[in-house]
Amino acid sequence: MNEPVLLTPGPLTTADSTREAMLRDWGSWDAAFNALTASVCRDLISIVGGEDSHVCVPLQGSGTFAVEAALGTLVPRDSKVLVPNNGAYCQRIVRMLGYLDRQAVVLKHREDEPADPARIDAALAADPAISHVAQVHCETGTGILNPLPQIAAVVAARGRHLIVDAMSSFGVVPINVRDIPFDALVAASGKCLEGVPGMGFVIVRRAALELAIENCHSLAMDLHDQWAYMQKTGQWRFTPPTHVVAALRQALDLYAQQGGQPARLARYSENCATLVNGMHALGFRTFIDAAVQAPIIVTFHAPADAAYDFPEFYRRVREKGFILYPGKLTSVDTFRVGCIGAIDPEVMRRAVAAIGASLKEMGVILRSAA
Amino acid sequence: MNEPVLLTPGPLTTADSTREAMLRDWGSWDAAFNALTASVCRDLISIVGGEDSHVCVPLQGSGTFAVEAALGTLVPRDSKVLVPNNGAYCQRIVRMLGYLDRQAVVLKHREDEPADPARIDAALAADPAISHVAQVHCETGTGILNPLPQIAAVVAARGRHLIVDAMSSFGVVPINVRDIPFDALVAASGKCLEGVPGMGFVIVRRAALELAIENCHSLAMDLHDQWAYMQKTGQWRFTPPTHVVAALRQALDLYAQQGGQPARLARYSENCATLVNGMHALGFRTFIDAAVQAPIIVTFHAPADAAYDFPEFYRRVREKGFILYPGKLTSVDTFRVGCIGAIDPEVMRRAVAAIGASLKEMGVILRSAA
Repeated sequence: MNEPVLLTPGPLTTADSTREAMLRDWGSWDAAFNALTASVCRDLISIVGGEDSHVCVPLQGSGTFAVEAALGTLVPRDSKVLVPNNGAYCQRIVRMLGYLDRQAVVLKHREDEPADPARIDAALAADPAISHVAQVHCETGTGILNPLPQIAAVVAARGRHLIVDAMSSFGVVPINVRDIPFDALVAASGKCLEGVPGMGFVIVRRAALELAIENCHSLAMDLHDQWAYMQKTGQWRFTPPTHVVAALRQALDLYAQQGGQPARLARYSENCATLVNGMHALGFRTFIDAAVQAPIIVTFHAPADAAYDFPEFYRRVREKGFILYPGKLTSVDTFRVGCIGAIDPEVMRRAVAAIGASLKEMGVILRSAA
Repeated sequence: MNEPVLLTPGPLTTADSTREAMLRDWGSWDAAFNALTASVCRDLISIVGGEDSHVCVPLQGSGTFAVEAALGTLVPRDSKVLVPNNGAYCQRIVRMLGYLDRQAVVLKHREDEPADPARIDAALAADPAISHVAQVHCETGTGILNPLPQIAAVVAARGRHLIVDAMSSFGVVPINVRDIPFDALVAASGKCLEGVPGMGFVIVRRAALELAIENCHSLAMDLHDQWAYMQKTGQWRFTPPTHVVAALRQALDLYAQQGGQPARLARYSENCATLVNGMHALGFRTFIDAAVQAPIIVTFHAPADAAYDFPEFYRRVREKGFILYPGKLTSVDTFRVGCIGAIDPEVMRRAVAAIGASLKEMGVILRSAA
């Protein structure tokens, strides 16, 4: 039994067959493993329709490693990056650019407000030295969905380059290179593809990657070097997380069998609606407006009742089989519940019941309770 | 059945129970997972007796990521690093230092010659600007064991700092901080501890790490930041490879149950002796002198016979259930066979038999055959 259920934005609850794919050891130099890597990369590119224009470069480590690798590899050293900032993962990109000694132009938004294409357009118009825009798609810090198609259009119209952190949206929210021009899009194994964590990947416009030779600040994160070596040998440069790759292969098979992106979006949307409706019925309020809420992770205001205490609430819900996620906002007391992973609306209903029962045990009363 | 057997220097053949430890999902924020991480770090430190002086910082990615993280975090930006170079992994450190804009002073050795403490001493005496020595312990490129105790003594006597790449020696060749003073020692989950690949770790002298604030070139690889966050929260900064960590926990339990470092050294030594004796009997010659051969991986000269072809040889041995490793020398035609992983002398005997049978099928004759 794979309990507790993870209602977190990755690692998440995976399918039994995905974990069972890790029961075999693979030689990282062996042709069978090279074929595994190649097939995974092919499938990842096809999810965004990038077969003709883009390549997929896998990278060891967490998704954050791959975001840093994309920035370090693709942004020229004397260049400026615009970062529309409405949450913790946008802020992390700003922090990375500081490490990389690239200038960041930060376009501050409220955390409950989607990134504004008109403000991005104005910022690009005002500063021709900005070469790249680094945009988080679904800001996992709150669960807000930024309007990627509109932002990509603005960036393209101004002749600038787009790097997308699609960590928690990839495979769920539709992204196609024909509608959404980008130089790089970053995601990871352990998010909505429902693999296990340990590997990121960057889908890069081939022409942009070819130009990015000897630009990276790091050997390990040099996507050009990783790609060039893989082109030549079929192998990863450094020891790959073989079991994680095998699990992702199985997770991608399940993804295709279940109907791909439309089916996953439908399931997660139903998970999210079940969660939000159930939580509303308990009296909870969501932090993000429904119109811009991604069906990935939902931020709820913490109960205002003095009897509420997150660690105690977390512990009681966990005892009942569900792992929640803390909030990531500094100014408002919140917690988050993920809608992603190998879970369905029935699981969400049970989670809501566990949350309700925990509040009752704690004697917490929600003012806005229906 | 977990076949073929990997006779490679990691990923390697792991125990069933180690892979089975990956059948559960873990919440990366959950106290149970924090306890798992903490217990793994405690065990890793205790292997080198560093409880009083050192801390363990785990890092997502392959071992190479952790080597780069150690260099980038600990070597001041205006500093110089001495790299005794007798193989591919030493050369990789030189390449990293180039990326990091740190000056490297390369002390070239032949690939069949261990790093020479007297030459290191002379190089340090000659250049007071050298602050660090970056030393590979077992050079996996050939399998040679460098004399770490003597090198560490020289570095300490000159008042310089030692960073050790112990990737393929950790847990097997004895290393204790009391005899071998070092600032950092780097290894990974998927080597001689017999975990699966996907995580590196650095055992760092606490006082050195405390000084290394805001020095790193990379957010993802900043060991000081990773450590400070982990001290505060018990958590990894970015999504950890949860299943890989769980597998390492199980692998460390097996390691202790089997008798720890002395037992592992004894088993690998027996594996190595069985391999080398068997291969000698077939007529193969080793590249490294027995006196400085580590019982980790052995480089053999390729047969001089024109009927020999590595890909064909590899394919035939693989069909018989064993995965070999190519050579990593540019000037001499070789191949490598690992002695590490959840394998015993009986496996090595069968591997030698498979190699012998493959040669026979190919009609390869070894000139020096007994």
